[in-house]
Amino acid sequence: MTNNNASKKTSLRTHTCGELNASNAGQTVTLTGWMDAKRNHGGVVFINLRDLYGVTQVVARPDSPVFKTAEEAKNEYVLRVTGKVTARPGSNANKNMTTGEIEVDASTIEILNISQPLPFDLGEHAGVSEETRLKYRFLDLRRERMAKNLVLRSRLSQVIRNYLYDLDFNEIETPLLTRSTPEGARDFVVPSRNNPGEFYALPQSPQQFKQVLMMSGMDRYFQLARNFRDEELRSDRQPEHTQIDLEMSFVDEQDIAKVVEGMMSAIFAHIGEEVKGPFPEMEFSDVMLKYGSDKPDLRYALEIKECSDIFKASAFKVFSGALAEGGVVRAIKGEGAAAFSRGDMDKLTELVKKFGAKGLVWLRFKDGKWESPTLKFINEAEQAALKERLDVKDGDAVFIAADKAAVAAPCLGALRNELIARLKPAKLKKWAFLWVRHFPLLEKDAETGNWTFTHNPFTAPLPEEAHKLDTDPGNVRSCQYDLVLNGVELGSGSVRNHTRAMQEKIFALMGYDKEQVQKRFAMIVNAMDFGAPPHGGIGMGYDRLIGIICGTESIRDVIAFPKTTSGACLMSDAPSVIDDRQLKELHIEIKK
Amino acid sequence: MTNNNASKKTSLRTHTCGELNASNAGQTVTLTGWMDAKRNHGGVVFINLRDLYGVTQVVARPDSPVFKTAEEAKNEYVLRVTGKVTARPGSNANKNMTTGEIEVDASTIEILNISQPLPFDLGEHAGVSEETRLKYRFLDLRRERMAKNLVLRSRLSQVIRNYLYDLDFNEIETPLLTRSTPEGARDFVVPSRNNPGEFYALPQSPQQFKQVLMMSGMDRYFQLARNFRDEELRSDRQPEHTQIDLEMSFVDEQDIAKVVEGMMSAIFAHIGEEVKGPFPEMEFSDVMLKYGSDKPDLRYALEIKECSDIFKASAFKVFSGALAEGGVVRAIKGEGAAAFSRGDMDKLTELVKKFGAKGLVWLRFKDGKWESPTLKFINEAEQAALKERLDVKDGDAVFIAADKAAVAAPCLGALRNELIARLKPAKLKKWAFLWVRHFPLLEKDAETGNWTFTHNPFTAPLPEEAHKLDTDPGNVRSCQYDLVLNGVELGSGSVRNHTRAMQEKIFALMGYDKEQVQKRFAMIVNAMDFGAPPHGGIGMGYDRLIGIICGTESIRDVIAFPKTTSGACLMSDAPSVIDDRQLKELHIEIKK
Repeated sequence: MTNNNASKKTSLRTHTCGELNASNAGQTVTLTGWMDAKRNHGGVVFINLRDLYGVTQVVARPDSPVFKTAEEAKNEYVLRVTGKVTARPGSNANKNMTTGEIEVDASTIEILNISQPLPFDLGEHAGVSEETRLKYRFLDLRRERMAKNLVLRSRLSQVIRNYLYDLDFNEIETPLLTRSTPEGARDFVVPSRNNPGEFYALPQSPQQFKQVLMMSGMDRYFQLARNFRDEELRSDRQPEHTQIDLEMSFVDEQDIAKVVEGMMSAIFAHIGEEVKGPFPEMEFSDVMLKYGSDKPDLRYALEIKECSDIFKASAFKVFSGALAEGGVVRAIKGEGAAAFSRGDMDKLTELVKKFGAKGLVWLRFKDGKWESPTLKFINEAEQAALKERLDVKDGDAVFIAADKAAVAAPCLGALRNELIARLKPAKLKKWAFLWVRHFPLLEKDAETGNWTFTHNPFTAPLPEEAHKLDTDPGNVRSCQYDLVLNGVELGSGSVRNHTRAMQEKIFALMGYDKEQVQKRFAMIVNAMDFGAPPHGGIGMGYDRLIGIICGTESIRDVIAFPKTTSGACLMSDAPSVIDDRQLKELHIEIKK
Repeated sequence: MTNNNASKKTSLRTHTCGELNASNAGQTVTLTGWMDAKRNHGGVVFINLRDLYGVTQVVARPDSPVFKTAEEAKNEYVLRVTGKVTARPGSNANKNMTTGEIEVDASTIEILNISQPLPFDLGEHAGVSEETRLKYRFLDLRRERMAKNLVLRSRLSQVIRNYLYDLDFNEIETPLLTRSTPEGARDFVVPSRNNPGEFYALPQSPQQFKQVLMMSGMDRYFQLARNFRDEELRSDRQPEHTQIDLEMSFVDEQDIAKVVEGMMSAIFAHIGEEVKGPFPEMEFSDVMLKYGSDKPDLRYALEIKECSDIFKASAFKVFSGALAEGGVVRAIKGEGAAAFSRGDMDKLTELVKKFGAKGLVWLRFKDGKWESPTLKFINEAEQAALKERLDVKDGDAVFIAADKAAVAAPCLGALRNELIARLKPAKLKKWAFLWVRHFPLLEKDAETGNWTFTHNPFTAPLPEEAHKLDTDPGNVRSCQYDLVLNGVELGSGSVRNHTRAMQEKIFALMGYDKEQVQKRFAMIVNAMDFGAPPHGGIGMGYDRLIGIICGTESIRDVIAFPKTTSGACLMSDAPSVIDDRQLKELHIEIKK
């Protein structure tokens, strides 16, 4: 955790609690830190003194003037200890501590601050509610695991920056007080005192400003940017989050991918893991077919198989009906899933129903025989074909969805995740990166029935398909790519529109007339009038990435001071009421 | 400006416009960029192609298929040019361009985007209003000077980060959606949708969170933090600004000073300037006496002299009256200021009146004789003493203020600045750093008459003076220090209170009872209950520092997308109205 011990010397300490070893024996040192534990052993008091860098054992002997202070000290008291470093005899050495070879024989102990009894034990994680941890975050962060997460987060941000600086990216700060624009989620807004009735918005991303920076000739931009979304919160969402945001001029998709792959190599090298580009890439349509999700966890081999051809003449109405309506029959195999009980099968059926399926067909293959409640509807040729297509072995089970592709895919995708969770199949690799490419440019808005953007309205269509915008816009693929790691969408990027003509054409498809475009997107379309270069980039969730690397369940464990799912900070008690004078100055009143 | 030319190759270009030289002659290259200028010379078209890294001359010959495109291209068109690098004969080489040894003989020219005629010429700075520059910021940033400012800002942020990482600081992001607290200026606030009637506040600084991080055991924190203040704006203020913010545990003032001095050395080394610590330091009381300002520009020698002793028996009522009321008589010399006209003297008198003086006494020393409208009130012994004290030479003038120290000091401080501006005295050095130390802990609030903090309520008193808090709080000096560079306050820091008892004592002096403390400062005082370590730190204005280094008149010239003095972004048209649905969701209404 430490680069440079000497540099951490201060006027109050000569060393930290993590650096002394046998080579320091005989030196007189001064340490500062927190009392982590104390025990009395045959009349001698042993104190574990802790700081961010480690723990050192301090000894207070009964004949020493420090003994009384050592007895007084309680857990989390802040102490300053001077004493002589003594090598511990081999048998007493503690191999579990980096400082286990030595102890410090105290000649003075000064209590720099006291502590009230703690609301929870810092040594144990279990049994403390997250609410208590967040309320006493200053204690929670003293736990080794949490402190390590924050230190690693900090170090990796520097790895990222150094990597990008070496490629001549410039970090340019974009405004946080900006204009409200419709980018999918709700904006947080800030009333303007100087402009009654007007509001700033906190940015959902630096998207428009980074594109304007490219139009400003800045060539290569990045920022570890703070983004804000006023959405319903979940374990992987916070009202503010940090994004590794970058944009480049005069590039195509592959140029951007190379930069990101190199960045991931650098990040993972820092934690001793080898990750190398080029990462596998798949078409959006393929990934939906094979994995039923645009963020599949490719650490696992499980794959959905198209079986419509097998059942094209099926007598089973569930299959023939779906196919007759232009749907599909697709299947996934669970290795060893023949052991699932009827109850398990019912639960899996419930699961796919949540994703819109009417039901789930399943078949177990046990002792060389199929069994299923619906086996009678599947003839022997179909059974044999199914067995071959999915390479079914004894003890496996097969799950079949028959529906419109748009329903079958997410159902089988969810089922795939559940099979992974239940069957714990072997991992093919530790870190499974995937580029998902060529998302559709447009999709139908469920509410309005209009075309809307799938990711952001600035994404360019694939050049070779742009001509279909007039005739078949729903089938135009885009230069949009997502980066997926271990089943988590890390980020999303694209090559952008750089001509005003193309940008306006896409806005027009989305139902915005020129006036609306000018009202909502004036900055970016105006900038396109004056020589905007071809450009593209990506934004990646930094909290998520660090969460995956630290192996935390929640991104709250890699954020120093996160909000709860109701958007509150339990430590500072934000948000809070403000006084009437403030409201008046801001030209607003409360209307509950 | 560039680290690594090869790394900037993309699928659209083989080189940038700033890297080709005679060693590339004979190569076929592809460049991308903007048409900066074009001239037709004997039927041959010469295009200056520009990107962030430089300008390269492109040649289109009349017999080439590219000639027509070259003729079509207009300023700021985005071009992609392929051609052969040709060495320019010695006499044609342009020594003012890094690429002046070569030109590119175009074999293809592709227009990647067009541009409308520009609203202003990018080559010239004069004559364009700042309003126009801000509205078309994407063009303004294409100017070399602006682009260089942003690149340097970015590079120096990395110098700072690498310096602090080497000292084992961790960059930890503190929340931007936080709780409104009274820290002097107005907060920007953000209505909470989930908590009707409640608001987040954007932080004026990470002060409380960084202190809590020390209480969390994080030992060394820094952040290039975004701060927000809803104040009236001036040329050196923006509603959001960036601060180099750091905090350390187990330190005293000198530990922090050393870190900052080393950082400044690293920053200035990057621009080829040598700056070395320790920086001079002065007591606040001394600096006010000698320079009449807590941020004096010590590039200049001018010093205010205490002259009360000289005039202790003065017959001049202006002096005797001030002294009788416990005031002071102080003087400053202007070398060569004897040449000032009566009109000049009147203007200087007007200036000091703005700072509360009733008038200004001045004496010119010309041809070995004093002259002044008030000379008759100053006897010969006093004249001689004055001449000696200020080392007056022929051609100098002396300016005297007689008033309470609290008035005389700022009057003479303002006068000192004006004398520097008018007389342009020799600079003693290029970069004059100064630590101003030991500000008073408390001062009387002009409105309420209560004690209030001078900088922030968390500053510790000087340990040796803390006992006077009960008896003479106005004379307790604090562990507060400001860093001044060339007359600009770069930053302000302190050693903080770390015990709850001392913090509450200071809050009590400021008139906050326990309940109010709990309401306003619960987070930090609660954390002090559980073993807060001694700690201190500093926050420094990054925009200001970069402004000084880049020599800009306004910090707006070192910020990519600044606001105007009315808080507007002329490019994105923020702030703006939001729709009724948003207001309703946020539980607020407009009340103009």
